[in-house]
Amino acid sequence: MVLERFKKTKKMLDEANVLYNTNLIYSDFFGKEIGANVYLKPENLQRTGSYKIRGSFNKIANLNLDQKKAGVIAASAGNHAQGVAFSALANNIPATIVMPVTSPSIKRRNTESYGANVILHGENYDEAYVHARNLEKEHGYTYVHAYDDIDVSIGQGSLAIEILEELPNADIILLPVGGGGLAAGVSTCAKLINPNIKIVGVEPAGASSLKIALEKGEPHALSTFSTIADGAQVGKVGYNIFPYLRSGIDYLTSVDDESLVDSLLDLIEHHKMIAEPSGLLSIAALTQLADLMGDIKNKTIVSVVSGGNIDPNTVSIYIQHALRRRGRIFEFSLTLPQKPGALARVVEIIAKEGGNIIDIHHDHFADINIRSAAHVTITLEVPEPAVKEKIIRLCSGK
Amino acid sequence: MVLERFKKTKKMLDEANVLYNTNLIYSDFFGKEIGANVYLKPENLQRTGSYKIRGSFNKIANLNLDQKKAGVIAASAGNHAQGVAFSALANNIPATIVMPVTSPSIKRRNTESYGANVILHGENYDEAYVHARNLEKEHGYTYVHAYDDIDVSIGQGSLAIEILEELPNADIILLPVGGGGLAAGVSTCAKLINPNIKIVGVEPAGASSLKIALEKGEPHALSTFSTIADGAQVGKVGYNIFPYLRSGIDYLTSVDDESLVDSLLDLIEHHKMIAEPSGLLSIAALTQLADLMGDIKNKTIVSVVSGGNIDPNTVSIYIQHALRRRGRIFEFSLTLPQKPGALARVVEIIAKEGGNIIDIHHDHFADINIRSAAHVTITLEVPEPAVKEKIIRLCSGK
Repeated sequence: MVLERFKKTKKMLDEANVLYNTNLIYSDFFGKEIGANVYLKPENLQRTGSYKIRGSFNKIANLNLDQKKAGVIAASAGNHAQGVAFSALANNIPATIVMPVTSPSIKRRNTESYGANVILHGENYDEAYVHARNLEKEHGYTYVHAYDDIDVSIGQGSLAIEILEELPNADIILLPVGGGGLAAGVSTCAKLINPNIKIVGVEPAGASSLKIALEKGEPHALSTFSTIADGAQVGKVGYNIFPYLRSGIDYLTSVDDESLVDSLLDLIEHHKMIAEPSGLLSIAALTQLADLMGDIKNKTIVSVVSGGNIDPNTVSIYIQHALRRRGRIFEFSLTLPQKPGALARVVEIIAKEGGNIIDIHHDHFADINIRSAAHVTITLEVPEPAVKEKIIRLCSGK
Repeated sequence: MVLERFKKTKKMLDEANVLYNTNLIYSDFFGKEIGANVYLKPENLQRTGSYKIRGSFNKIANLNLDQKKAGVIAASAGNHAQGVAFSALANNIPATIVMPVTSPSIKRRNTESYGANVILHGENYDEAYVHARNLEKEHGYTYVHAYDDIDVSIGQGSLAIEILEELPNADIILLPVGGGGLAAGVSTCAKLINPNIKIVGVEPAGASSLKIALEKGEPHALSTFSTIADGAQVGKVGYNIFPYLRSGIDYLTSVDDESLVDSLLDLIEHHKMIAEPSGLLSIAALTQLADLMGDIKNKTIVSVVSGGNIDPNTVSIYIQHALRRRGRIFEFSLTLPQKPGALARVVEIIAKEGGNIIDIHHDHFADINIRSAAHVTITLEVPEPAVKEKIIRLCSGK
């Protein structure tokens, strides 16, 4: 990967007019939180909802005429599928995407909406992958790998050119790491432009495939892996890109699922955007930077928010979880005497303290003498966590 | 309002470096939906979460030294409060904000975080307003009106310069209308730059204060008004800006609360952003354009998403409502025989059709012979509305 190829790719993508502008967003909030200048690179706002379009478009646009005529194939459960389908459509060539039967239907429908032939096969990505590689041989398709492909990785690297054109004095870039395609391309390109820049890779704690590869000295399959960051849930990093990951990434860290949910709430409250869990990895890792790198005061930091393809119902569930984790929504139980006014008194206290009742469950089977006591469970939203203890204390009559 | 003043204001705002870039976002989805080229102007991503910072900063930066020393005051329950507080802080002058006691605490805390002195007074905006005007006289503050002020309105108009610099061939701009400050400034400025541009004002159906003003020939108070679009819930448009609204707005329409909730889901699914209900007015009105204006094919349309200050818990509630409205989440009830395997059969059908069970309520009091039948209510999420009828049919044994 040499700088000339990255530049040529970026120019081609611009001329094809396929990318949305994802200009850096300055973050007062995250900057204050860690005492540095923080910018977000919002690839959640990218066309197809993630950076994946960059790599797949580069791969597909550079095929020769025979390859274009035969068409492309890919296996993917999500963002890569949409990137390949869009890029094939834009280049007017046929695309087949093998998705596991368990793929979220919204991602399947998005992929189909770009005209791709979607085949549902296998219970997981690995089974879909094997089927896709068989179809590749059978039909003479070109396989477009989601990450283990130099052309794909160079396409993703176009992101580094954009970041450093807009912010030449960036000191640190945080990148999510799944299979490694984004991390290899962006880190390599960024260092070709500015050798002093530091790259931080962020994996899901439940799928640290780069960590084990670095330990073993080569890509190594995790025996088990599990994370809500489905976009970065890869058991083994790519072989072809591994040398670039090893030389490009200065610091590697990981983030647990709970932190991703917290970061989603931060992003919604302070930046009015949503992102998928894998897109939140580089946000959740911001608070680890000082421990990882030492003093980061006044450093200029770019956090790549890689994608936004998350189901709206999941967004609403994660918001509720995060509000509970912060004590802004909570549940508490009381045993109340079964007499008129007992519940009214509790409800009045809650209203007076600014609490908003979400749910009340009143169980009068709690005691065998049903006239004596009822068990009441109340779910509440409060404006700030501090109110929680006060309401519980007052309602308990203390 | 002359073009020179708009340009001077925009230059001042740029030099003060207070605005975030809110570059236009091209929308494949909304464009396809209405058969035109649609761009969003994302002021939900603006500093303080809405365009309000433009007007308040312009007002405050232009005060004379004595006025600056005495400080400013404003009444507001939301976005204007944050705009004034930020602008006063940036200009190093004291600010007092009177907010009704019913204001959401998150907006109060945001306002306080910019160093403003927040006074809670009155049950609603009108009562807070009267108190603020009394304090203005008592202390010699300068009052910064949320909309009925030419300097404030010219500040909001800076948005038109940005839109037309980026997209000189824009044909139509959609603007939310509350008190009218944004609509007056942007429509006037846009027409000074391009007299052929068409402006569409969009009010909440439950607070159409401009509609009644245009009918009466002057601002007129609505006797009652109610909408979830709190940022545009104003009972009477401003006197000082009314002449500009009358000359600037070519078409006026309104949107009901349900459509705003639907638009939030669209914005989340297709643009990975959230907006507050008043910020969704100009999105929800897109589908009305053809009826309103005739043929809009291939027209270039800009929809101003004015703000994003919505509580995350409210976001999660609106997502659930919208998913229900689209049939993607639904509830249905069955009477099942009380025998082993009855519920298991139902659950299997749901799983096979790709349904995701959110809630099951099993009521064995439904029949006085509790051994004969149980009443089961199931809440489900399905990938597409079409699956709904099939699941209900199969589960009912039809």
